[in-house]
Amino acid sequence: MKIIIVGASGTMGKHLAGSLEKDHEIIRTGSKSGDIRVDITSPDSIENMYRQAGDFDALVCTAGPTYVGPWKNMTHKEFRKGIEGKLFGQINLVLIGQHYIQPKGSFTLITGALADDPVLNFSNASAANGGVEGFVRAAAIELGGGIRINAVSPGVIEDSPQYFPLFPGEIPVSMKHLEYAFRKGVFGAGTGQVIRVS
Amino acid sequence: MKIIIVGASGTMGKHLAGSLEKDHEIIRTGSKSGDIRVDITSPDSIENMYRQAGDFDALVCTAGPTYVGPWKNMTHKEFRKGIEGKLFGQINLVLIGQHYIQPKGSFTLITGALADDPVLNFSNASAANGGVEGFVRAAAIELGGGIRINAVSPGVIEDSPQYFPLFPGEIPVSMKHLEYAFRKGVFGAGTGQVIRVS
Repeated sequence: MKIIIVGASGTMGKHLAGSLEKDHEIIRTGSKSGDIRVDITSPDSIENMYRQAGDFDALVCTAGPTYVGPWKNMTHKEFRKGIEGKLFGQINLVLIGQHYIQPKGSFTLITGALADDPVLNFSNASAANGGVEGFVRAAAIELGGGIRINAVSPGVIEDSPQYFPLFPGEIPVSMKHLEYAFRKGVFGAGTGQVIRVS
Repeated sequence: MKIIIVGASGTMGKHLAGSLEKDHEIIRTGSKSGDIRVDITSPDSIENMYRQAGDFDALVCTAGPTYVGPWKNMTHKEFRKGIEGKLFGQINLVLIGQHYIQPKGSFTLITGALADDPVLNFSNASAANGGVEGFVRAAAIELGGGIRINAVSPGVIEDSPQYFPLFPGEIPVSMKHLEYAFRKGVFGAGTGQVIRVS
């Protein structure tokens, strides 16, 4: 299978690419490194990524830029980061990518437990996650050609210990469990699902 | 109580304003009419609305611009309508309005059943609704001063029969039930809730 991983140099993307490349052709993409550079806040850049990648079977996005910081600093300017990044960026990966993906291909996006279980400082991610989840359910009934779409929703993850103090009482998600959730999105048969991983 | 209703000339806003004005001071606002004009896609316009309205106890938003149309016509250009309107517009009503609202005041936003139960042609609304719901839960733990925030989530509503053919099998929500949901947001004690109305 030919799989594009967006955000392949990030904590999640790196782990996933390393595991999947044993059995699959992986195209690593990211804003600063990778086989192809992509800025997901730019539809032109996304279109360019797909043109360069050619036909593919699955797209996995692990890139979700959002603003993390105190509520008192949060204006529409900070909030836009997650709107254009994790939310609209991922939506555009699908709106554009559907014209390049192989029949019966799949999109697996990244959301997170913050959609339903907020913590302080992450309201931008909560909104972006909720939007991605609503989109995934709607796109699942719109996409033709047997194309599937799902989202993986982890809590705080094991390999991001810098976030642990901001998630009091949360048991970190192991990288292995996170990987399994993405495998369910790519290799499973479900669509329109939020794959929760704990 | 002094209540700002955004979208007061729309189907929902008109009904709600007419009912609430019997016992409360209502400031009607909207993009094309009302006591104060506001374009919720513009933070400057929102700030101007609050300055003109002065201290208030509750804001109710019934305005949620989104793109409705066939998936095949849906590019990032069409999709932006709901991103800037129903999603980011409502978020900015809160981010800005928190600096003008009275202590123990409340925000009641509009979302919709499409967040969880999509129908064809409405993916833009599904994404916007999901985003608003994630934001409401997160903002509820961030807002100080006893300020509450909730969202009302109806299915297709009785007074919008033009949409009935697009919502096969859905029982329209009565205007009375819809009004009760908004009353729960404004006069209840809950916060961070999605008030589902059927």
